[in-house]
Amino acid sequence: MLAEIITIGDEILIGQIVDTNSAWMAQLLNREGIRVKQISSVSDSREHILKALAEAALRADIILITGGLGPTKDDITKQTLAEYFNVPLVMNDDALNNVLNIFKRYNRPMLDVNRLQAQVPQNCEVILNHNGTAPGMWFNESGKIYVSMPGVPFEMQYMMQDQVVPKLKSTLQLPVIVHKTILTAGEGESYLAEKIADIEDSLPPYIKLAYLPKMGQVRLRLSGDGEDEDQLRQEIEAFAAKIIERVGINVIAEEDKPIEKVILDTMKQHDFTLSVAESCTGGYVSHLLTQHPGSSAVYLGGAISYSNDLKQSILGVKEETLYQFGAVSEQTVREMVAGALQQFKSDFAIAITGIAGPDGGTEEKPVGTVWIAVANANKTIAKKFTFGNKRVQNIERSAVGAFFMLNTLIKETTT
Amino acid sequence: MLAEIITIGDEILIGQIVDTNSAWMAQLLNREGIRVKQISSVSDSREHILKALAEAALRADIILITGGLGPTKDDITKQTLAEYFNVPLVMNDDALNNVLNIFKRYNRPMLDVNRLQAQVPQNCEVILNHNGTAPGMWFNESGKIYVSMPGVPFEMQYMMQDQVVPKLKSTLQLPVIVHKTILTAGEGESYLAEKIADIEDSLPPYIKLAYLPKMGQVRLRLSGDGEDEDQLRQEIEAFAAKIIERVGINVIAEEDKPIEKVILDTMKQHDFTLSVAESCTGGYVSHLLTQHPGSSAVYLGGAISYSNDLKQSILGVKEETLYQFGAVSEQTVREMVAGALQQFKSDFAIAITGIAGPDGGTEEKPVGTVWIAVANANKTIAKKFTFGNKRVQNIERSAVGAFFMLNTLIKETTT
Repeated sequence: MLAEIITIGDEILIGQIVDTNSAWMAQLLNREGIRVKQISSVSDSREHILKALAEAALRADIILITGGLGPTKDDITKQTLAEYFNVPLVMNDDALNNVLNIFKRYNRPMLDVNRLQAQVPQNCEVILNHNGTAPGMWFNESGKIYVSMPGVPFEMQYMMQDQVVPKLKSTLQLPVIVHKTILTAGEGESYLAEKIADIEDSLPPYIKLAYLPKMGQVRLRLSGDGEDEDQLRQEIEAFAAKIIERVGINVIAEEDKPIEKVILDTMKQHDFTLSVAESCTGGYVSHLLTQHPGSSAVYLGGAISYSNDLKQSILGVKEETLYQFGAVSEQTVREMVAGALQQFKSDFAIAITGIAGPDGGTEEKPVGTVWIAVANANKTIAKKFTFGNKRVQNIERSAVGAFFMLNTLIKETTT
Repeated sequence: MLAEIITIGDEILIGQIVDTNSAWMAQLLNREGIRVKQISSVSDSREHILKALAEAALRADIILITGGLGPTKDDITKQTLAEYFNVPLVMNDDALNNVLNIFKRYNRPMLDVNRLQAQVPQNCEVILNHNGTAPGMWFNESGKIYVSMPGVPFEMQYMMQDQVVPKLKSTLQLPVIVHKTILTAGEGESYLAEKIADIEDSLPPYIKLAYLPKMGQVRLRLSGDGEDEDQLRQEIEAFAAKIIERVGINVIAEEDKPIEKVILDTMKQHDFTLSVAESCTGGYVSHLLTQHPGSSAVYLGGAISYSNDLKQSILGVKEETLYQFGAVSEQTVREMVAGALQQFKSDFAIAITGIAGPDGGTEEKPVGTVWIAVANANKTIAKKFTFGNKRVQNIERSAVGAFFMLNTLIKETTT
């Protein structure tokens, strides 16, 4: 089954926004066994949209369209779809009620242009938008399915997940596709590939293994297609179990989940608390943790001790340690993590000190040198990393390195 | 002058990566007066690439292609371009030397597949890649310009900036385009539009004003096209000066620059130091600051006092203040900012406490309630914000709110 994605809007073509919708949609579709043939971004121009629709219909069975549904004059997707299908626009009661309710909820005066948002091409089935005023539209014409959705990412995402994908599954005979993702950290793609080579070789032709590397983490995704979903799932779970056993400590989660969320969930389950002492990561580790709802049940807080003074005053790192070994050293990171445990009274702590770059490196300690420590009351682990010379990447890799070490210590503590 | 962008690679169509290249290229092209007509992402398939090239050549004068130039078998852009132009692949000496040098520099054994990277279609002009082994290729055929570049973002970016855009400018008669961006914060798009309506109305037809809103900030971009660059620039600067005077305190910078970088640069210039006490932003403010090279000259560090205990122990917030007024209150945020100034010995400090959500709201203090304070030794400003119910957006808007307040205080201090 082939799909195409058409994004409509000048803001993409002038580079004002990056089109993140398409990748998100493509991922979701691929997971359901729908391959994306082409992604096209076109302007808010009637002629251009008509041409893009006709071209896509020649190549694919499903055409997913985002954008151009706003109330302003430059948004013409709906009128153009009506022209494409040669039908008039009609007022839809459900869509109108949705608009009315939204304006009532926010207690704002409704303008005529907002009422017009409830107009749709006569041949469409309305997909209600629970997060905005522009309705989604589903067309089934000449054996092709067209779906038009708003370009606002979260409006589109809820529509895709809750309504469009289930409807595609019930309308079309999609193959049974089963996925299983294993999140790993601490080792690279080629190391993992070698370690599980024989398991990979033993996979039947209908089960594939993909390596998806990203900043010190590698996701291993098993995907199978077949007819009997239960049997396929069992087979995939059996292969996953073999891989998980083999990869051992580098397995972070048996599902696709951000590494810091895995840690928050495990710690919450055990009623553990965490504090963080960051130097070169400058708040990034804490930000990753606190972006997740409910993180306050685990994360108590932390210090960002960018200057040496703060390493001493908040974390109690000794002046002679800094003087003798330097701020980026095993001794300093150990005192930082001990200071965090003591000052912030948490069960676990992370400390990071390093040279993110681009300046500040020396021959002995080049840019990319990072010391990380994790600790609880009984044990401290400290490790030196040597990353590259790109500041932002060094910050990201340090965070992943710290989370991997903490995950290992938590596992040791709980098993 | 019209351009099209074609990105080649299955990894985009399965949603494994987001295509950030196209927006980056579109921005650069638009700045030079080249409009992007369509962006298409196609698979690593010979037939599909040939079709996309032919379709793009019907619509545009310049076709920019990225991706599919790697050494592995699935990368077929080069062979397909040779087929499209009906020419053979030939070894290019300059490109080969580049590959040899790269392998020499990293002291790695060179494989045959790497040598083959120096082969290019006979009719192309090679664009040297100073950051990788795959050469760029420039074709001028039947009145159309085709440029093929690697998909690795930084390789493509250097090629575009240093070679492709200058070559387009010297080859084509591009219009003179002058841009001027003004960064504002603290007021919305419609407020600004009303405030400068008469200035906007007085713009000549060849100068346009665009409002580019993003998370509590609005960029105002003046763009003009004409023949005499100097005169055009003078005119645009004159309009910009009027807008800047009118918008007043909400102007953060007279160029396009992240707000926290504006603050770092100004503070560095005055030898000011900064510390941060974050609660609901959980490290995000510090992360924004410390992602920039050289931030350690200004930013000393900070505390992330997620728990009430840490608000007391690190920042010295009084227990009775927390008890009487709550953690999210003017009294608490004032004690936090005073504590940061005193504990971290900085010239300026930011403090933020709020309810990011989705939980933790009450009738009196709903999710999205945020108190922000900025201070120096002489003055403290505290302000309450009421944002929405989305956690990540509340965190981002709080950061921008804090930076705007700090920028205002710095301006007061230095003028």
